[in-house]
Amino acid sequence: MLIYIAEELSNFFNASDRRYFKSKVKGYELFFSKSNKITKKFLSSSIVFGNIPPKMIENSSNLEWVQLESTGFSEYKYLEKLKNKIIITNLKGFFAKQVAQTALGSILAIYRGIIKTENLKNSKQWIGDPIRNSLSTLDNKYVVLVGTGSINKLFMKYIKPFQCKVVTFNTSSKEKNLLRHLKKAELVISALPGTDKTTNFFDKLKLNNLNKNCIFVNIGRGNAVDEKFLIQILKDYKIRGAVLDVTRDEPLKKDSSLWSLKNVILTQHTGGGSESEIRDKIDFFLNNLKKFKNNKKNLINKVNLSKGY
Amino acid sequence: MLIYIAEELSNFFNASDRRYFKSKVKGYELFFSKSNKITKKFLSSSIVFGNIPPKMIENSSNLEWVQLESTGFSEYKYLEKLKNKIIITNLKGFFAKQVAQTALGSILAIYRGIIKTENLKNSKQWIGDPIRNSLSTLDNKYVVLVGTGSINKLFMKYIKPFQCKVVTFNTSSKEKNLLRHLKKAELVISALPGTDKTTNFFDKLKLNNLNKNCIFVNIGRGNAVDEKFLIQILKDYKIRGAVLDVTRDEPLKKDSSLWSLKNVILTQHTGGGSESEIRDKIDFFLNNLKKFKNNKKNLINKVNLSKGY
Repeated sequence: MLIYIAEELSNFFNASDRRYFKSKVKGYELFFSKSNKITKKFLSSSIVFGNIPPKMIENSSNLEWVQLESTGFSEYKYLEKLKNKIIITNLKGFFAKQVAQTALGSILAIYRGIIKTENLKNSKQWIGDPIRNSLSTLDNKYVVLVGTGSINKLFMKYIKPFQCKVVTFNTSSKEKNLLRHLKKAELVISALPGTDKTTNFFDKLKLNNLNKNCIFVNIGRGNAVDEKFLIQILKDYKIRGAVLDVTRDEPLKKDSSLWSLKNVILTQHTGGGSESEIRDKIDFFLNNLKKFKNNKKNLINKVNLSKGY
Repeated sequence: MLIYIAEELSNFFNASDRRYFKSKVKGYELFFSKSNKITKKFLSSSIVFGNIPPKMIENSSNLEWVQLESTGFSEYKYLEKLKNKIIITNLKGFFAKQVAQTALGSILAIYRGIIKTENLKNSKQWIGDPIRNSLSTLDNKYVVLVGTGSINKLFMKYIKPFQCKVVTFNTSSKEKNLLRHLKKAELVISALPGTDKTTNFFDKLKLNNLNKNCIFVNIGRGNAVDEKFLIQILKDYKIRGAVLDVTRDEPLKKDSSLWSLKNVILTQHTGGGSESEIRDKIDFFLNNLKKFKNNKKNLINKVNLSKGY
């Protein structure tokens, strides 16, 4: 049986990762792809590991299972028609601890003036004491978590010692309520997936309800925010700041105002990263491969293409 | 009865802080000092709130109680001879949550690449994905906490969700042990007070035992570290990085190498700061004033001048 490793993922494997992977998948042939073309190798593969263009899946012949290396899968949604033939699984939950720690670190970097002193360091400038009364702590903050997936669940666990007031929202919450809480929020964390329904979820109305002490954090997908309007309220200091792991354009365009706004942290969609990312992905795949061998139905993280998350 | 507010502390009071303070201390006269000179007002004061030169305490006549606005009190140690006449109290524990949150935020800012992306933002440079495999999480880290006062106790509470291996050291621990743990440590947090005994506690021997994945954090006092040697091992990448809230010289001299080391975070002794610092100090003082009124012996945070912490 042939396992086809997608081009983009293959590029992240070094020699030692390849050796490790090979040693763990006895009985399977591995093919590390160097292009996204439909080749004979691809057509004879039963399993794909990594993200390939959805067109390739559509034109496959022996394919039974695709293990994506991402949580998001919006570009594959139109393949719903193939759902009885090909199973697609994703990495839901896989990036949660990394992303939640990027969020926590970024928020504390604002509250504790770490961004400020880093920029002072660049100009070898000591200010010291006069900075102190501009700093905050996380204690007792009014926190609104939008999206209640694995990231925000973990974030809640991390901020437990700080006795924040935490309010959570998901698809089953009533929107009227949300506006009321956004008004009072000191931290808003958007961890929404990238679906048609989440596009511009944070629209002018919602963003306009944020107050001047609020930090807006987007660690979900860039589509969820009216970015132009967010830039406007950041420029006007109508909110305290923003932490954006994700943006509408990635890479962010050179002329985006976000680059020069002092009250914005941009983590360039690195939130899910870690030094053990490849090994952890391999281990996740291997664990799912075991399930695949026994019974395809037991695969974990099967995506619901029609729902989008 | 006269309460004398030290010059440096007076400077931090705005009009509204003064009004607040006055409204709470009925029955006392308040004097906001504008200099550190021994005046008639000073000589007739029974209580000092804030840090005055120790010489002033030595030459006081009616003084019964000094409430310092700091945790450290090393410059007052030689006043031990006055201990039966004048009680000195400090703000031990007062800065713990702020400092511990500066530490946590700075560590995550290194692990999650937030410092890196902040500097990329300054040059409007998108790197994105290739950053990911240089990032770490706090999970399962080997953490050595030196000093077991309120800061490190709180820090332990904050990192509980990350299931780190935590080892603590204080004056009653055996040093041989410490070296063994320093070898394996991925995080070392020094929260030692500034006493004669702590000077150069982190000497060449101890610093030489740190490994290349270790982040050294000093949130206690700058005297505890052989800073020249720390700079050397940072330059040679013998450790991963350092977070220094405190340094030997404060302000740090313009020609210190610490300014230009990319693997160093300098928070300029702001770790204890917060927007509510003055109000919180006032409230702490008021609470102690109540105790003073009832029975001087009940004052909290009486310092032990001979011990130094």
